[in-house]
Order: sequence, then C-alpha cells, then structure tokens
Amino acid sequence: MAVTTKLLLAILLTAFLLSATNAVRDFQGQQGRQEGQRGTRLTEAQQCRLTRLTASQPTNRIESEGGVTELWDENEEQFQCAGVAPMRSVIRRNSLSLPNFHPMPRLVYIERGQGLIGITYPGCAETFQSQSQPFQAGREPREERGQGRRSDQHQKVHRIRQGDVVALPAGAAHWCYNDGEEELVAVSVNDLNHRSNQLDQNLRAFYLAGGVPESGRQQTQAGQRLQSRQRFQNIFRAFDTELMAEAFNIPAEIVRRMQEEQQSERGLIVNVREGMRMIRPDEEEGEFEEEQGRPRRGQQWWEEATGNGLEENICTMKIRTNLEHRTQADIFSRQAGKINHVNRQKLPILKYMDMSASRGTLYPNALLTPHWSVNSHCVVYVQRGEAQVQVVDHSGQQVMNDRVNQGEMFVVPQYFASTVRAGQNGLEFVVWRTSSEPMNSQLAGYTSVIRAMPVEVLTNAYQISPNEAQRLKMNRGGESFLLSPQRRSI
Amino acid sequence: MAVTTKLLLAILLTAFLLSATNAVRDFQGQQGRQEGQRGTRLTEAQQCRLTRLTASQPTNRIESEGGVTELWDENEEQFQCAGVAPMRSVIRRNSLSLPNFHPMPRLVYIERGQGLIGITYPGCAETFQSQSQPFQAGREPREERGQGRRSDQHQKVHRIRQGDVVALPAGAAHWCYNDGEEELVAVSVNDLNHRSNQLDQNLRAFYLAGGVPESGRQQTQAGQRLQSRQRFQNIFRAFDTELMAEAFNIPAEIVRRMQEEQQSERGLIVNVREGMRMIRPDEEEGEFEEEQGRPRRGQQWWEEATGNGLEENICTMKIRTNLEHRTQADIFSRQAGKINHVNRQKLPILKYMDMSASRGTLYPNALLTPHWSVNSHCVVYVQRGEAQVQVVDHSGQQVMNDRVNQGEMFVVPQYFASTVRAGQNGLEFVVWRTSSEPMNSQLAGYTSVIRAMPVEVLTNAYQISPNEAQRLKMNRGGESFLLSPQRRSI
Amino acid sequence: MAVTTKLLLAILLTAFLLSATNAVRDFQGQQGRQEGQRGTRLTEAQQCRLTRLTASQPTNRIESEGGVTELWDENEEQFQCAGVAPMRSVIRRNSLSLPNFHPMPRLVYIERGQGLIGITYPGCAETFQSQSQPFQAGREPREERGQGRRSDQHQKVHRIRQGDVVALPAGAAHWCYNDGEEELVAVSVNDLNHRSNQLDQNLRAFYLAGGVPESGRQQTQAGQRLQSRQRFQNIFRAFDTELMAEAFNIPAEIVRRMQEEQQSERGLIVNVREGMRMIRPDEEEGEFEEEQGRPRRGQQWWEEATGNGLEENICTMKIRTNLEHRTQADIFSRQAGKINHVNRQKLPILKYMDMSASRGTLYPNALLTPHWSVNSHCVVYVQRGEAQVQVVDHSGQQVMNDRVNQGEMFVVPQYFASTVRAGQNGLEFVVWRTSSEPMNSQLAGYTSVIRAMPVEVLTNAYQISPNEAQRLKMNRGGESFLLSPQRRSI
Repeated sequence: MAVTTKLLLAILLTAFLLSATNAVRDFQGQQGRQEGQRGTRLTEAQQCRLTRLTASQPTNRIESEGGVTELWDENEEQFQCAGVAPMRSVIRRNSLSLPNFHPMPRLVYIERGQGLIGITYPGCAETFQSQSQPFQAGREPREERGQGRRSDQHQKVHRIRQGDVVALPAGAAHWCYNDGEEELVAVSVNDLNHRSNQLDQNLRAFYLAGGVPESGRQQTQAGQRLQSRQRFQNIFRAFDTELMAEAFNIPAEIVRRMQEEQQSERGLIVNVREGMRMIRPDEEEGEFEEEQGRPRRGQQWWEEATGNGLEENICTMKIRTNLEHRTQADIFSRQAGKINHVNRQKLPILKYMDMSASRGTLYPNALLTPHWSVNSHCVVYVQRGEAQVQVVDHSGQQVMNDRVNQGEMFVVPQYFASTVRAGQNGLEFVVWRTSSEPMNSQLAGYTSVIRAMPVEVLTNAYQISPNEAQRLKMNRGGESFLLSPQRRSI
Repeated sequence: MAVTTKLLLAILLTAFLLSATNAVRDFQGQQGRQEGQRGTRLTEAQQCRLTRLTASQPTNRIESEGGVTELWDENEEQFQCAGVAPMRSVIRRNSLSLPNFHPMPRLVYIERGQGLIGITYPGCAETFQSQSQPFQAGREPREERGQGRRSDQHQKVHRIRQGDVVALPAGAAHWCYNDGEEELVAVSVNDLNHRSNQLDQNLRAFYLAGGVPESGRQQTQAGQRLQSRQRFQNIFRAFDTELMAEAFNIPAEIVRRMQEEQQSERGLIVNVREGMRMIRPDEEEGEFEEEQGRPRRGQQWWEEATGNGLEENICTMKIRTNLEHRTQADIFSRQAGKINHVNRQKLPILKYMDMSASRGTLYPNALLTPHWSVNSHCVVYVQRGEAQVQVVDHSGQQVMNDRVNQGEMFVVPQYFASTVRAGQNGLEFVVWRTSSEPMNSQLAGYTSVIRAMPVEVLTNAYQISPNEAQRLKMNRGGESFLLSPQRRSI
Repeated sequence: MAVTTKLLLAILLTAFLLSATNAVRDFQGQQGRQEGQRGTRLTEAQQCRLTRLTASQPTNRIESEGGVTELWDENEEQFQCAGVAPMRSVIRRNSLSLPNFHPMPRLVYIERGQGLIGITYPGCAETFQSQSQPFQAGREPREERGQGRRSDQHQKVHRIRQGDVVALPAGAAHWCYNDGEEELVAVSVNDLNHRSNQLDQNLRAFYLAGGVPESGRQQTQAGQRLQSRQRFQNIFRAFDTELMAEAFNIPAEIVRRMQEEQQSERGLIVNVREGMRMIRPDEEEGEFEEEQGRPRRGQQWWEEATGNGLEENICTMKIRTNLEHRTQADIFSRQAGKINHVNRQKLPILKYMDMSASRGTLYPNALLTPHWSVNSHCVVYVQRGEAQVQVVDHSGQQVMNDRVNQGEMFVVPQYFASTVRAGQNGLEFVVWRTSSEPMNSQLAGYTSVIRAMPVEVLTNAYQISPNEAQRLKMNRGGESFLLSPQRRSI
C-alpha cells in the first residue's frame, strides 16, 4: 500500500500541474480503490445502465429546531450508479447538530460559515479540558454550585470554516456546533459502497440524541411525508429505560428524559441553551495556520507515525483541510481558472475513506477539457454560477447535455467522457470522488492522450493529414485540464 | 497494511482494557476489512433490512457413522445480512471427520473435547514421519508384512483442545480425528462473503471422501429432507474411474472402492478402524505451552518471517490459539466477568481470513455495555447460561429484545447498538466477527463516546443539567465494556 | 502487501516445479485477490449455480476494414460465474486497431503474428521521438512541406510478438498496429469483476476513433444483429462539434471529419494508408532479449523503484512478457509436457490487474492431475489439439465431461475439481486466472494433498489397506501436475 501511496502521490501532484513537462505519473491509480472493500452491493437496479443523467436538487427536507437537513434521493439512477447519497445541512447560529454516526464514510464540504466539530474515537484519550459553565451554576441546586467550576474533560474539538473539507469516518460519532455569526452550510457525500459498510446501500444514520420528528415537519418536494422519516432516530429511545439506567448507573428519570418523545420533536439540529463558549480551543488560529502551511510535513509525520507504531499520534489525526486557499491551487490558469484537490496525500485519513474532493473555479466561458475519470465516479455540486455539461458513454450516446445551475448535483460515472463549459458568469464547483487518489485521462491539452500518440496513429485513425494531426496534438499549447475560452484559430 | 496492522494492534490491546486511562487507539480499524475482497454478493434478498432478529438453533442435521453435523439455515435473514453460515459438528470418540475443503474461511471454536487436525497446504513439505501400523500388519497379505514397519511421511498434525479457536483457510483440505475420551464438539462460522470466495454466497464443502448419505438420514427440524443434502459429496465419485486410476497410477479397483456408494453411507464423519495413535505428535504439550506463553513473540516472528521472505516458516503457520486461559483475559472485571479475544495479532493467519473471535464470561446479572461494532458483524453463540439481549437499529426500533439460551446463535449487524444482561446463572458466550481487527464503540463506561463528549454537548443534546451530564459521563467510574450489576445510585 | 507478494512468489516458483522436494509454499495465496476490490457485482443471475459447463466459440463477430473482432457471449453462465468476457481480434497486415480504453483490465495473449502497441498513461512523458513521414510530404499543401521532416514526440511504443502476454490496464487508451507479414491474432480475457470497474458487469469499450458500423456487418452465429452493436462507438461523435473544436483549438472542419459516420464504417480496425514505419523502436530486439533474460531482476528493480518512490520508472513499466520460451518452463516433464506461467512476479503490473496467465503443452494422452484452483477462476483457451476435460462440483456432479477442440474457450470455476487428458495429438492451451498469484491444490502426484495426509487418514477415509494407501500416495513418484500417460501398474 505504501508503495501505491507514493506512486499515486506522484500522479496527483504532477498530473494536474500546468507545467508538468516531463511529469511522471503511473497508471496504477487507475486500478481503482487500492485497499480492500467489502464489496459493492449492486443489485440489478443499481447498475450503471444510464441512458440519461440530470442534475438534481434535494428531494427530502427535514426541518429541525436549529436548522435544516436536505437529502438528495439516493435512489436516483445516477446516485445508485455511483453508490453515493448526497446531503446538505444548514445549522443556524448557536445551534448544535446532534451526535450521530453512520455506516459509511462521509466527506463534508463547508460551503459557508464556521463552527466546532467533535469526532469521538473509541478509546482515544480525553485530551481537552474545559472549565465548565460557572455562569450557569445558579441554574443548578445549591449542592452542585460548588462543582460549578469543575473541569470537564473530553476529546479533541476541531475548528471548521468555510472552504474546509471534513472527513467523517464510518461509525465515528460526531457533533457539530455553529458558534459563528452566520448559518453553517455543509454539503456532504456519503459513500454507501465503501467497504466499511457491510450492511447495504441504504443511507442510514444512528443518532445518539434527537431524531426526526414524527409530526411530519419533514416534507418532500411533492409535499408527502417520506418513509425515510424513520431513518434517523435516537437509538436510546429503543432501549429499555431501566436497562439504560443501570448501564449508566444513573437514575431512570434521567434516562427517561433522554428518551422523551419531545426530544425527537427538536429534530436533528437543536438550539443551544447552555452556552458552549468554553469548549472553543484557544489555539484555533495557530492550529489553523499550521495545518495549512505544512500539509506535506503533516504527511511525512503521518507516514512516520504509523510506520513505526507511534500510535499515540493517531488520536490527533487531521480530519480537515481547506480548499479555498488561493496560493495553493493544484491547477492554475490565468485565463481559465483554478482547481484545488484534497486527496490521501493532503489528508491521510482519506486513505481509509477512499474518497477525495476538489474545488474548482472556471472563469466565464472557460472549459474543462474533455476527459474521463480513470478510477472513480465523480459527484459534482454547483456552488455558484452555471455551466453547460456534456457527458458521453461508450456507445457514443450523449447521456447528458444540460445547463447546470447553482445548488444542483450530478454524477459523472467512471470512464464516461465529459466536458464542462462555464457560463457567462463563470462557475464554482465542488467534486467528490470515490477514490482517495483520483486520476483522470484527458483528450485535449498538454497532458492528453491525443498528444501522447504518434501522429501516424492519429492520421490513420481519423483520416486527417499529418499537419492536422499535429494541430490536434499541439494547438492547446501548454494548457492542461483547464482550457481558456477562445475563438478558434484556423 | 503493516501500518494498519500495527495501529489496529494498539486498538485491540488497549480498547478493551479496563485500566486504559490514556489509552491510544485509532479509528482506522473502523474502515472495515483492510485487505481486498472480491466483493460481497449481496442480492436484494441478502440486504440488511432486518425488522426482527431471533436467536436460532440449527435447522439441518446430518447424521454420520462417527458423529453429527448440524447446520444453521444460512438463508435466515440475519445470517444473510452478515454473510455467514454457522455449523456445529460432534465427532465421537475414535472417529474421523473426513478430508474436505470449502470455498470460504471457517473459524472453529472447540467447545468440548480434544483431537488432532491436519490441514494440507499444497506444496508444503511432509515434515511429520510416523511409523505405520506394525500391529495391523497381519491384516495385510504376506508380502506387505515386510513393509509393516515402513515409515509414513505427511504434513504437520496439530493438537486441538477445548477452548481452542482453529483457523481453516479457504480451499485448504483438512481432516480431524477425535483421539480423546469424550465427544469433540466444534462450533464454526463460515464467512461466505470473504473475498477468497469468488463463487457465491451458498455454503459449499468439497469432500475428498465420504459424503452425505442419499438414504435420508439427514433431517430438518420439520422432518423433511433438505436440498442441501447434495451439498457435500465425495468429489472422487464423479470422476471417471479409469481416469482416476491412471492419474494415481493405481488399479481401477482401488479407485472403485473409493467411489463406492457405501462410502457415502458412512457420511461425513467415520469410525476409525485402523488405529491412528502413531500420528500423535509427542511434543504436543510443549508446543501447547509455548504457543500460549508467547503470543506476542509469535507475532514478531511472523512479521519477520514474512517480511524478509523466509517463507519456509509459513508451512508451520500457527492455526490455533486457546481462548480459555484465565490468566490471559483481555478484559477482566472482578464484578462483571472477563473476555478473551483472538485477532490477527494473536493469530496472524486471521489477517488472511479477516475474521476474529472472542469468548466471554458474564457473571450473574452483569451487563455488556450498550455498544456498536464499528467494522464487523457479530455472530454470537450462547455456550452456557442465558441472557437478555437488546438490539436497536438506526430507526430507533428494537429489532431484538429476547432471552437467549444455551446452544442458540444470533447476529448483531454492524453498527446496530446492542446490550446484553446475563441471567441469574451468568453467561458464557463465543462471538465471531467478520473482521480480523474488530473494534467497537461504547455508549456507557470509561471508554465510551458519551464520556468523550463535552458536558455542554450532552446538556444541550438531552436537555439535562450539567450535573446530570457529568453523572452520565462518570457514574460507571473505571468500568469498561463489562458492567457490574448494581442497584442504581441516586 | 509486499509481504504477501513475496510469499506468493515462493508459492508460484515452487508449487509447480517438478523437483520441488521440500518445497515450501504458503496458503495465503488462497485468500484470493490480495488487494481491495470495489466489489463484485453479482446479481442473482450471475451466481455460480452451474449445472453444466460447455466449451464455446465466439458468438459475435464485428468485421472491420482491417480485421475482425470476435466476442464470446459474456452472458454465458460460465463467463458470468467467472465475471469475464473473452474476445479474439484479428488485425490484418498493415492495419491498426483504433485507440480505445475499457473499464476493466484486459490480459491479451498474442496467438500469432507481431506488431506494435502503444498504451498512453495520462501524464507520462512523450519519450519517443520519430521523424515524421518525409516521403508523404507531397500529399500536403506546399506550406507544410517545410515541416515534413519535423519530429513527432509520443509515448513509448512496445513491440509485441507471438507468445506474448500483454497487460492492458483499465482505463488506459491503447492502439495496436500490425507491421508484420502475417495476421496478428490476439486472444484476450476482460475481467469485469475487477475492483477497477465501478460500473457494472457489462463489457464496454470506449473508442477514441472508429466504432462499430451501423450497417450491420456485425453478425451473430445465427445471423441476427446484436444489441452489442452499440457497445463500441467513437466517443467524439457524441460531443458537440463546436465544443470539440474549441477544446482542441482546431477548425470545426477537422472535428467534423473525426466525427463523420464514414469513420465508423471502417469499424474498429482500419487499413493504414499513411506509413507507420518510423515509429518502430530500433532497439526492439535488445529490449526483447533483456526482458526475457532477467525477469527476476526486473522484479527486484520494480520493488525498489516503487518502494523508494522513484516513480520516474513507472511510466516505463513492463507490460508484456513471452510465454513461449522453451528454456523458461515453470513445469517441465519429458514425458508429459510443460507449462509457462506469468504472474505478478514476472510481470509486476499484474499485481494491479489481479490477473495472470499460463501457456501449457500436453503431450499426446498426457494428463493434468485432478486439482482445484484455490484462489481464482480459470478461463481456458484451446490453442491447438484437443482434450477430454472433466470438471466436478461440490455436490459430486460432473458439470463437464467433454472433448474440447481448437479455438474453444471454457471456464473452470474456483474450487471445482478438474482434470484434463490430452488427445492423440497433444494439446496446447492458454489459461487466464482471476488472481495475480494463482495457486492450485492437486489430488494426485508429488505435491498433492493425498500425499500430504497420513496413511491412517486414507485407510480410514477410503476403507483401503495401508498398502493401498501407500500406493495412492506414492505411485506417481516425482510427477507433479503434469502426469505422463501410462498403463496402470498393478
């Protein structure tokens, strides 16, 4: 694996660089997900016999006290093909997304806002110490006041901000608190096909608190309630009260309150009444800078740490990185735009999630070169602007030739050829990929397969002249992946 | 992989230890089976849409001359979900379970008795030399008597005993002989979903001798004969006699006797007429002690041996370890019980089988903390005693809330939350897991996710006071996984 | 993985050697495909519930201008079970198989002829420099003549010859040109189940030029046109002309010619009008000798290169090796025949494709010992001669007992026991396996499981005498896998 990791690093770092003249890349990345998976659960209906792809909006909306959760329909053919379930959460100011875990990895993009996130790894030490709520002491009976300044220990809390990609591993309970001044908007893709999911391709989430209200606040576009209403429910509610009371060694009354129907009425995201200011890490800015400034060193450290068994560092594994740093674009073109990638090299935890993401900006009328994804499906989210997208399958059919708009999501299946042309106002997009080391193969441009072929192959393949073949190979000059808009030369 | 191995070792060794104060564990284990699998063959029917789990007994019983084979119905929803097929074999005194292999790994727990097992690896040297049956020489014609003392060479034979876990890799032919004074009872789980099985999710076994009798000794609970009767049949019977005679370069008559219907009449386990005393290894006790005394060194040795290509050690790869050594409990509580694990660290061959097992003892009324399994399904067998089991799914439904009894088997699917409370007489159980580095996440106790969260998250999530949240986090003190029975404090 | 690699190397190198007296092999190979797969997409219909195997011929034939492509029906039960799609291509003299890629790895055996093949890895440097077509300059308008001697740079071109096994990774565009004096015949197996294929089990190929003609030259055996006609089509045809023109920065007219229906009329293999002599590498013979002479050193180099991150060597990764070198047989018997293997050790790229191949020659009436394949399906192609094949399943049924003839293909599923007896004129065959480190377990002969068992197990299992058991074990002497024809001794 380590071998592959390194090879793929090379690919990623070079394959998309504009100036990658003698770039060396290998092709092993193509062989797909490098580590074991416990299988794709493709049933007949889930196969990729797509005849038509259409960008889509969420179809299911769960209103909560402190925000909204929107779900795309994972039964849509395109999401079935890719084995993913996209979702978007809005957490309002001073609201808390309740602790939950899910049977598959989820890769989150923070579209707007900021907050704190806690991911609990079973058995990691509680390394954060907060002074707990002295100002709330009056709310408690007298005998507790003395404890008002007691310290609370818990696991690490992470600061997240707009532009961050956050990795939520399968099975890890996590919560998120919006302590910012605006809404926190998070767009996520769940990889139902990932080997960590031995259940099936249904989206599930196990909530440790709250739950989807029974009273029907949840609605579909057509207004009817969905069966997915039952998807998310506080698992405590279903255990016997007495048993839980004994397990926690607490009075049954506390358990009863945790299980109350009223808890579910608040939904999946709740308003925070007890202040959560004290759990904010003081060193957040420093941490932030450091993480961004030395991604490669972080990687080195990781390799070392895991290679020599210094596991104590694992509990502090980085779970986020930022995709909006201008100075760190992986592909940049003054005329066409830029793209930032996050893969297993930049965020090693992605190795175990076998996912990655990119954020791109296309200037008005600029193009993504026609290309195919060698080892992953792509799930594309339009953050701003609009674009014309063409996707072509192996039988020479256009499965997609649509204008996509802000807030829409669509899938480009593995190996399908696609091209994107930004609209008049440009395009900002986020792509999730079902590989931690994605690789694509381009048709036009500096690093394209057409350029890699002998002129004689092109002349005979297309019945064009050597001169025309040379133009086909060379006319995009040094442009790679991002193509500037232009009137064609003759 | 080596990286992951080491990390996961850390998890396993620490995650379940009672005193794991600053225990460091990582979360990569969660990402499921670390090495490749050739897919799960989940069809619609096999998905984990369970609404009800029920502990069950074997439904199919194959009587043989020398013992009994009982099969649980692998088409039961719970076993389909986990992709496993459980079975229990009883080999009577001085009886031989005939050589066979199966297309998936099988992990065996020796519930009672002792015996000898031989697993033949293609191409490993015949390192055992026995003196063959001088006392039987009279049975042979005169000209053979001179050869009566000839030596016989064969591959290693392993001693197995009550409490052993024995790993039978996919495709390896094996036999087992009960040379003890009581019945040998073996309970096994076959992992049909394992990548080594490129066929399908049907339980198969390829017998090199014997076979299930046609005459209907096999019965189901309801008394009807099953189609699975044809499952196990001597593969020699189907080859042409002459062809086999030529292949082995022996008279057709010998082949004919090997193929006789009468052979199948004896079933899968036969009485031994020719004594098998001489193949018992003399050094068995020594070997036994050594293996148990230095599990970690064995691991080191393994890493070395495989790392530097000293493959000659592989043919002697350890295939068993014992789960009943009191002094080696992985989790121990004077008030609640104890648990012994065997995983890829203790038995490296499990790395390739991607399975593991545990044996637990719960004292009367003690609890297993509410928890979920992060990277595997659990298949639980009740060896002695009884317990109340609650299992909860993501939608907040109790899929199980039953009393389970001796001899029953049930599945707790991956990520489903479960808790167990032992009955008045305590509980002894064995768990198989579909991961070689299993990991669980607990709700209550010292290493729980609740304890890992800030008090403020709990107060807001459950609308309880900080004091109550502290109790929720701390009231189980240092107890981890195994919880002592107690009247609740107020 | 490296660990496993080495172990498996040992297996392969020793397991099949005739003189492997104390051969050491391990059993990890059996655990199937070592690296992760994104699942097998077995639906109900694709399961291995075979009751009958039959050798078959291609059922679909695509005529092209420069050759013929024949496809076996991948929906045949046996191919579904193995998850493979076999095909055979005939490229006529001076013809070019057009650039295309496919979503799964393809392992090709060159049955006859020679040619040049180019595989384009995205981003690898264009390390080949050719002088482009000075003699054709007259065909171009005047202003281009000056450029007639311009040099053309492209990626590496490989020489392929009869007996070669060529690895085509998933997603890599490749072309092939027959520059020899006879037809180039290539027989291939596509592994649809491979993890690199996240789509589904349908055979697809994405052509960058040409396509299957609409006009019905393609025919099935029964004469009807197939739906698979649409399978292979130039992906350029489906993109908008203007968009492509802009992407390549070329006149729309050139794109239009690339997209013309007439292009498809030429099919998948076209006649070469523009000479392709100049792209032939001068050093071909030297390269050829070197590759064959030091396969083990190549491996060492590979391990090193990938281990220490010298990725620049990857773009030159070996993609072929020859299976017809007499001096390099892996198994050789003066009386019975010989077998050459190619696995991940000899051709490291196979590690990522998880496939391997063998070529065998059986002398008249010689046998392949009864055996089962431990970690892969086998796809067998009869190159010359004929043979009687018996295949037996777990239920003791003969699923195959047929004479197979030249040009036929059949599957022996994983774990099924099989034996082959060559006809009067011997047999030449090629086997593809769905593992890069295949391993088998033999019933008769020097390295068989029968020989690995104690005599007492055999006497009791088969109710034969110790003397007969000794014969069963020993009568084939030192013969392993390949068994010489003989009249049976008594």
